[in-house]
Amino acid sequence: MKQPGCPLCDAPGGRVVVQAPRWRLVHAQEPGFPGFYRVVWEQHVREFSQLVPADRQSCMDVVVAVEEALLRHLQPTKVNIAALGNAVPHLHWHVIARFDWDSHFPGAVWAGVQRTADPQKLEAVSARLPALEQDLLARF
Amino acid sequence: MKQPGCPLCDAPGGRVVVQAPRWRLVHAQEPGFPGFYRVVWEQHVREFSQLVPADRQSCMDVVVAVEEALLRHLQPTKVNIAALGNAVPHLHWHVIARFDWDSHFPGAVWAGVQRTADPQKLEAVSARLPALEQDLLARF
Repeated sequence: MKQPGCPLCDAPGGRVVVQAPRWRLVHAQEPGFPGFYRVVWEQHVREFSQLVPADRQSCMDVVVAVEEALLRHLQPTKVNIAALGNAVPHLHWHVIARFDWDSHFPGAVWAGVQRTADPQKLEAVSARLPALEQDLLARF
Repeated sequence: MKQPGCPLCDAPGGRVVVQAPRWRLVHAQEPGFPGFYRVVWEQHVREFSQLVPADRQSCMDVVVAVEEALLRHLQPTKVNIAALGNAVPHLHWHVIARFDWDSHFPGAVWAGVQRTADPQKLEAVSARLPALEQDLLARF
């Protein structure tokens, strides 16, 4: 069921990596954060707890698979996982590889800028995304 | 296993509401956010995906129970859930009742201040926490 005017009902919310019947995985295309993906639940659901238990588990299994792929392929300092949805209340999980050299570390990506990230380091992360995404595609 | 110097191995990280063998629920005591709780995993684990599947499910069951209690008792505009851990890499989930009148809405609680929240509204939320916490205590 689509919600009229919802940005995540009307559009993918990023570059689609995996489209499954109940969810999609998109690359967020957020400048400065090449290892930033989103798991978007297909149905317009507001809160995570509104999913039935089996769907919650499926959803978190995808989030965990993305986190594992980020850890394996990018060796980040930390992975951040969040379902906020204040601006777009359609269930989506942010799964973000964070590096101690990135523009906002150790703050949240929604917090203030701390430094300019080295473009070469950002490019090196981006270069590893095709293999990471192949891995995820093979898993689902 | 405790990690020397880890703030969440050394201290509860808030006012303890429920202490279970594998996790604890604490009230975060963050000014401006009375409906802010944390589910802290007892063992020092860095990333959510490092938990075995049964522990991941137990952990998310607690997160979901807290979210449901926030929705039922506080009627927030939105609930925010996040496991970041950049500053304190010991697995903990933030579960936060957000209101369209709070100081940071619709931004993340880690983003910039947008307004001063009405102290009476904050007090009205705080007044509902004892019943909310009794409900959670009865559940676990």
